Amino acid sequence: MSARGVFLSFEGADGAGKTTQLRRLAARLRAQGREVVETREPGGAPGAEEIRRLVLEGDPARWSAVTELLLFNAARRDHVERTIAPALARGAVVLCDRFADSSRVYQGVVRGAGAELADSLHALAIGIEPDLTLILDIAPRTGLTRGLARGTAEERFERFGLAFQARVRAAFRDLAAANPARCRLIDAEGDEEAVAARVWAAAAPLFEARA
Amino acid sequence: MSARGVFLSFEGADGAGKTTQLRRLAARLRAQGREVVETREPGGAPGAEEIRRLVLEGDPARWSAVTELLLFNAARRDHVERTIAPALARGAVVLCDRFADSSRVYQGVVRGAGAELADSLHALAIGIEPDLTLILDIAPRTGLTRGLARGTAEERFERFGLAFQARVRAAFRDLAAANPARCRLIDAEGDEEAVAARVWAAAAPLFEARA
Repeated sequence: MSARGVFLSFEGADGAGKTTQLRRLAARLRAQGREVVETREPGGAPGAEEIRRLVLEGDPARWSAVTELLLFNAARRDHVERTIAPALARGAVVLCDRFADSSRVYQGVVRGAGAELADSLHALAIGIEPDLTLILDIAPRTGLTRGLARGTAEERFERFGLAFQARVRAAFRDLAAANPARCRLIDAEGDEEAVAARVWAAAAPLFEARA
Repeated sequence: MSARGVFLSFEGADGAGKTTQLRRLAARLRAQGREVVETREPGGAPGAEEIRRLVLEGDPARWSAVTELLLFNAARRDHVERTIAPALARGAVVLCDRFADSSRVYQGVVRGAGAELADSLHALAIGIEPDLTLILDIAPRTGLTRGLARGTAEERFERFGLAFQARVRAAFRDLAAANPARCRLIDAEGDEEAVAARVWAAAAPLFEARA
């Protein structure tokens, strides 16, 4: 772990602004001369992208929560092996749009596979955790509005409406509370600049400490 | 478990005669008036068949052994939920062409993901074990000749030649030795009739005990 890079994940409901804030943070860190790898889950490596297509295309109800959790762990294992671990080994900053916490929340808590099963599978098959996880927190209605406005084909989790968004938010908040050393809850309401300032305030100490 | 059916798996290297012997045993049990479900892995349920296609098509080297193990466990979970568990619950006999032991041998031992990881994942994500596992044992050259003669597109594991077949055989034999209560090693050399008689001798006590 001596020459290891920095691993940072963005989490939160769809529409929370993860992708936008990840790009802004990447630009800011590159302006400091750092190598930054921007990646996302599910996917982030060729084999993992194949698994992503399998899971996100077709009827989402055709897998049970546990089967889906296993598929996401397979994709994550490939992503870690092929993209994240090599980047960290050469000292890069890895910014990841969703990581294991999304499995804990969506498959583990919301779909009901169990948070314990999600944790046990992660410990067994993946192991690595981000140095810092920024959980972008928004009101359910904000997420739904932003998510629906974006209108991509893959937004299957957004179909389920306000009650679903509220359960996702609550699960992410519980996760942040249970992992205070790793997770920061970021208020993601309001304009992009203001949220970016809050993201930077949370992330900057990690880079100062290693500079 | 009161009205539970009987779960029997066939294992062994490609070309050992699993499919042929499974069909013969199914016919014999049906002639006794039993409901028999013939199934196979990877696959055996619609979602699991999708995962089968993902894994068996394309370059086999694109997944690591651990990623492949996770994918096979995802397929197996779906197979158990949709096909095996419902059949056992209604009292049927389930004959399965490959089950978890194939993951233990191919991904765990031969490809090197680790037998312990294969066992731990199985305990966590699958749980169920067959009542009886018949391991069809053949000389590496016999398996290779039979497998190549069959010539289907999916025989990816057979590409690796005699040394590969020998490692598979040794791993299945170790597995049989480590699980004497569940596994029977069946001599699968010689003609189909003679092997079928050995299969019946091993399987019959299970059905007499429950008749």
